[in-house]
Amino acid sequence: MRPSGRNLSEMRAITIETGVMRHAEGSCLIRVGDTQVLCSASIEEKAPPFLRGTGKGWVTAEYGMLPRATNTRNRREAATGKQGGRTVEIQRLIGRSLRAGVDLRALGERQIVVDCDVIQADGGTRCASITGGWVALRLAMNRLVEAGMVSSDPMLDHVAAVSCGIYAGQPVVDLDYAEDSEAGTDGNFVMTGTGRLIEVQMSAEGATFSRDEMGALLDLADAGVGELVAAQKAAL
Amino acid sequence: MRPSGRNLSEMRAITIETGVMRHAEGSCLIRVGDTQVLCSASIEEKAPPFLRGTGKGWVTAEYGMLPRATNTRNRREAATGKQGGRTVEIQRLIGRSLRAGVDLRALGERQIVVDCDVIQADGGTRCASITGGWVALRLAMNRLVEAGMVSSDPMLDHVAAVSCGIYAGQPVVDLDYAEDSEAGTDGNFVMTGTGRLIEVQMSAEGATFSRDEMGALLDLADAGVGELVAAQKAAL
Amino acid sequence: MRPSGRNLSEMRAITIETGVMRHAEGSCLIRVGDTQVLCSASIEEKAPPFLRGTGKGWVTAEYGMLPRATNTRNRREAATGKQGGRTVEIQRLIGRSLRAGVDLRALGERQIVVDCDVIQADGGTRCASITGGWVALRLAMNRLVEAGMVSSDPMLDHVAAVSCGIYAGQPVVDLDYAEDSEAGTDGNFVMTGTGRLIEVQMSAEGATFSRDEMGALLDLADAGVGELVAAQKAAL
Amino acid sequence: MRPSGRNLSEMRAITIETGVMRHAEGSCLIRVGDTQVLCSASIEEKAPPFLRGTGKGWVTAEYGMLPRATNTRNRREAATGKQGGRTVEIQRLIGRSLRAGVDLRALGERQIVVDCDVIQADGGTRCASITGGWVALRLAMNRLVEAGMVSSDPMLDHVAAVSCGIYAGQPVVDLDYAEDSEAGTDGNFVMTGTGRLIEVQMSAEGATFSRDEMGALLDLADAGVGELVAAQKAAL
Amino acid sequence: MRPSGRNLSEMRAITIETGVMRHAEGSCLIRVGDTQVLCSASIEEKAPPFLRGTGKGWVTAEYGMLPRATNTRNRREAATGKQGGRTVEIQRLIGRSLRAGVDLRALGERQIVVDCDVIQADGGTRCASITGGWVALRLAMNRLVEAGMVSSDPMLDHVAAVSCGIYAGQPVVDLDYAEDSEAGTDGNFVMTGTGRLIEVQMSAEGATFSRDEMGALLDLADAGVGELVAAQKAAL
Amino acid sequence: MRPSGRNLSEMRAITIETGVMRHAEGSCLIRVGDTQVLCSASIEEKAPPFLRGTGKGWVTAEYGMLPRATNTRNRREAATGKQGGRTVEIQRLIGRSLRAGVDLRALGERQIVVDCDVIQADGGTRCASITGGWVALRLAMNRLVEAGMVSSDPMLDHVAAVSCGIYAGQPVVDLDYAEDSEAGTDGNFVMTGTGRLIEVQMSAEGATFSRDEMGALLDLADAGVGELVAAQKAAL
Repeated sequence: MRPSGRNLSEMRAITIETGVMRHAEGSCLIRVGDTQVLCSASIEEKAPPFLRGTGKGWVTAEYGMLPRATNTRNRREAATGKQGGRTVEIQRLIGRSLRAGVDLRALGERQIVVDCDVIQADGGTRCASITGGWVALRLAMNRLVEAGMVSSDPMLDHVAAVSCGIYAGQPVVDLDYAEDSEAGTDGNFVMTGTGRLIEVQMSAEGATFSRDEMGALLDLADAGVGELVAAQKAAL
Repeated sequence: MRPSGRNLSEMRAITIETGVMRHAEGSCLIRVGDTQVLCSASIEEKAPPFLRGTGKGWVTAEYGMLPRATNTRNRREAATGKQGGRTVEIQRLIGRSLRAGVDLRALGERQIVVDCDVIQADGGTRCASITGGWVALRLAMNRLVEAGMVSSDPMLDHVAAVSCGIYAGQPVVDLDYAEDSEAGTDGNFVMTGTGRLIEVQMSAEGATFSRDEMGALLDLADAGVGELVAAQKAAL
Repeated sequence: MRPSGRNLSEMRAITIETGVMRHAEGSCLIRVGDTQVLCSASIEEKAPPFLRGTGKGWVTAEYGMLPRATNTRNRREAATGKQGGRTVEIQRLIGRSLRAGVDLRALGERQIVVDCDVIQADGGTRCASITGGWVALRLAMNRLVEAGMVSSDPMLDHVAAVSCGIYAGQPVVDLDYAEDSEAGTDGNFVMTGTGRLIEVQMSAEGATFSRDEMGALLDLADAGVGELVAAQKAAL
Repeated sequence: MRPSGRNLSEMRAITIETGVMRHAEGSCLIRVGDTQVLCSASIEEKAPPFLRGTGKGWVTAEYGMLPRATNTRNRREAATGKQGGRTVEIQRLIGRSLRAGVDLRALGERQIVVDCDVIQADGGTRCASITGGWVALRLAMNRLVEAGMVSSDPMLDHVAAVSCGIYAGQPVVDLDYAEDSEAGTDGNFVMTGTGRLIEVQMSAEGATFSRDEMGALLDLADAGVGELVAAQKAAL
Repeated sequence: MRPSGRNLSEMRAITIETGVMRHAEGSCLIRVGDTQVLCSASIEEKAPPFLRGTGKGWVTAEYGMLPRATNTRNRREAATGKQGGRTVEIQRLIGRSLRAGVDLRALGERQIVVDCDVIQADGGTRCASITGGWVALRLAMNRLVEAGMVSSDPMLDHVAAVSCGIYAGQPVVDLDYAEDSEAGTDGNFVMTGTGRLIEVQMSAEGATFSRDEMGALLDLADAGVGELVAAQKAAL
Repeated sequence: MRPSGRNLSEMRAITIETGVMRHAEGSCLIRVGDTQVLCSASIEEKAPPFLRGTGKGWVTAEYGMLPRATNTRNRREAATGKQGGRTVEIQRLIGRSLRAGVDLRALGERQIVVDCDVIQADGGTRCASITGGWVALRLAMNRLVEAGMVSSDPMLDHVAAVSCGIYAGQPVVDLDYAEDSEAGTDGNFVMTGTGRLIEVQMSAEGATFSRDEMGALLDLADAGVGELVAAQKAAL
């Protein structure tokens, strides 16, 4: 029933290649099916102004998409003069999600910027960005730990994300573009390695949904995130 | 335990005053505790370009906040030269939520713009905007129905929204600012008059949450939206 | 002869309701006929950079209009990415006018920002903003005086403003929108409580005017501002 | 008493050199003392959108200042990314003033853009822009008349402007920068060749002013504009 | 003498991998040493407005750099709100260079947009963009030719570019970042496959240069471009 | 053969009038044929942030064009909200060129801003800006030298620029607009008073060019810059 022939609870193939950007403190290229996101983590030895003097650090994220990552070319945001509403929403989500897995006090007064740039898009780019962004962040943190710049590891747990939705009346996991553009309801679940929830964002895109459907989607997400966390562990 | 002395499942006082803006096709002032939002609906006899020739209409929303709606003055977005990320997220949410309650084909090729301007803020401004914005939209639709400009009523159902969160370890409904700024987890539930879900947005702001807590929040939201829908009916 | 049936020298009904915004140091809602402006004054314990170290303070103003304050919806300035020329002109006028009634040295190195947001427009919004903005400013100053933060009252005199114009060949006071859009000449007079002039701005909008007409308009303005000052006193 | 040694009612030297820009339909360099403004008028055979199909034309103006026209260098507005509030106010004033001297219906559906660029500033740049801008406009109109593109001359009368103010307690005309920066009250008077008023803009910059002072300033302006109109006639 | 140990006339290793972006009509990843640029060509069946009705098409280019392509993170241009001067210069150069190798009349009224995004930077990114961009363009043109959408092949010749400079007093080819940041003079040569010049851009960055040095650089460029053209041929 | 009747190697008439802007530390009006550029140099006793504490100064340039400097009116960049790509390229070129003639260490931690504003355009405005900008810079430097604010003269040599191109198949110098818009290849050569090269920028605008043609253009440029340097000397 799914355009790709997958089962309702079947994820796409996941690969995470680390160390792909020579200059970054941490980096990876994550592929989830045909979706490809290049993630880097950059350590800056200066916390943002609102944290000066608090002893706490910060993790933030920026998201971008190459103009031809998509089926038809999108205008380059640098050329339009601003980041669109969708971009702003996504990068705020990535930042919040990653911070939920970090002890900002243990990080100390510095900032890590995670850049997620979509090279190729086929649905689920924000979830791939969170999952891959976490790997880049973990690698950058390793440098801080190894260099003795932090007294304890600031990473609390894995963070990964998967999309779920109601497609053709059925709850499915890890929607590709063909499904995403047709789904009556879809959204994203961000979870920790131990299965706790960080973000739940479900939207009716054409059909409202019931409490029971919400439960089915939570079940799918829980299993899907488990696979993503396993892929993160394998990559490190 | 709550700063306001409310029970865990107790909503703040809700009042909806209609017809407060002389020029608008529909308008109301919604008060949820000390939060006050002025909502107007403006009918434009032209659909946005992407709908030209489709026979379908559109409902969109814009959100703003007076600089001194808050405890300390915020910079005016018109003066900073752009709408912030939070504003963009909120108005996209309001627009999506209201569209879920409208048959856009029955509306015909026209657009209704719902403006939600926060006069005073004490938590829950986006939920109050959705709940009050729906009333303004309903009033504007009444004009179209009465004038025979639509052949059937484009409104499918009530739409209302409430915030829920985990405050001091307990699930609570309709957070005020004091709670919102301290909650470990909070979010918003947008639902129809018949109890179906339109949007679920939960974020861990300092503590992740469990599947059981998610369930408790859904229960609170369900009851809270029921009260809001009753207030909408009373106002009309 | 006037669309509203008023006499040439007859003002519209004036009401000023104070304390309408919980968070602001001073606030009021001024109604001049159907024109409604929400005014707030916010004290900031930091003077603008060009006054650092001078011992002097500053009073500035910002002006906005809700998109549907007018008969047809205006684009939200925050969404267009800048304040239009008309807005900039008006807020500069409000700021200059209010500063003419304040001893900036007695204020000390702090700034008061007066926000004037038009909730409903029917002509004369800049004059109502000045008249109401002065009340908000007076209330905020009272706080400084009462708290002993200033050694003498920085307020020198009342400041109020009224529009005048040549409508259908006759000089009239306090033009509403119907008159304003048809007047051959119109403008604004800002005056003190003792009848001295602060600003005179007269523009030919279709017909030039004579020295004698200028004199008649000054007479009307003088009487009109007297009524506005009386309303300010009544409100405080 | 005046820094320049002039009498209270004495204007600075005025010269208007026409035809200084090879490409423009009309142009002049106006010098009022040390203030120098390059004015050009450009005919565009297309009226602005709001006039399409009305048979009426438009005259508009833009104002700029070279970065080093002033004593200390100002930032270039093209580099800051927007025209400042002062620039916007001035160019709106120039446009309104020039339109008061033109029969827009006789002009037909075309637009004339008057550019006023300050080469050197020593007070009174907006008045010099109006006076010089009118000459550029007149020259461009001559081309339309000579080419038979208009059936009657669209120019109704001369338009010229002069600044006046209260300097050291005395009413003076045509303030230079030294006076302008010290004046308690100053402003601008735009008048026709026959002595009728187009714009009056007086602002208290430190001291309010009386009705009698307003009268004295109007007298000075009337005489000053007479001299400017004579200079316009001499230049043509 | 060169930091990399290369001879004065020795290019870095060049690899061009085609077909790397699924959605683009033409694409490649070009690597010149550690510099990596992802190039795509997108066909749009609409010429830019200035060519409507002329029967001619257009080729344009956009250039970007991932924030962490460099040694320290650069701010994302989409977030700063505009493309910097360097970016604008580079993308104008790429566009002009590629157009020199295309018969725009044979292309017909359509546009091809070549996007060059630097994944990793180590000097020479604009030259790699031109060389790789040409391959992407060639691949997209092949589609037009194969589909019979053009009656003759619009490609006139190969276009490739190499940097040259005076490093430590010696003329060198294909500068890497270590050389580029120290060179007294450097610049770029864009040439055709038959050795004709398209662009020459040499700048003294600290030391002026002589006519003889200019000649030596032209020699180096000629040989270097020859190698690049061979790599283009090998890739296709 | 040239539209102006000039010989292939014949420059247009050059005049440089100094001291034309009262407020600037150095200024001139340069005329090259019908091209006229007003140049000023402003000394700022503060180096840009990236040079703080280095003991070195900076020279930068800004370029502008009056809207009606050209045959048809161009939009004012201040009104469009940004400097176009062409403007940015030109002002970067002027700044780099002038810095090549200055010992920034001898200048000390201050900045000189050279503004080049085109009053009338007939081709070659960037070259005239460099040639005239150098004169303004020299005059401003004289002030520093005379005031003993620098211990040695920071000026190393003259800097001047000329355009060259292939017009109707022949190499020509100092192209006017009629030639510039038709030339198959054109570009700019910036050189010192002793004939060394600072910048070479040649672009094929329709026809590629050979190594021999490049040589012929270098010869023309060498002679042309000689004449410009003579005019600079005559003006000082």
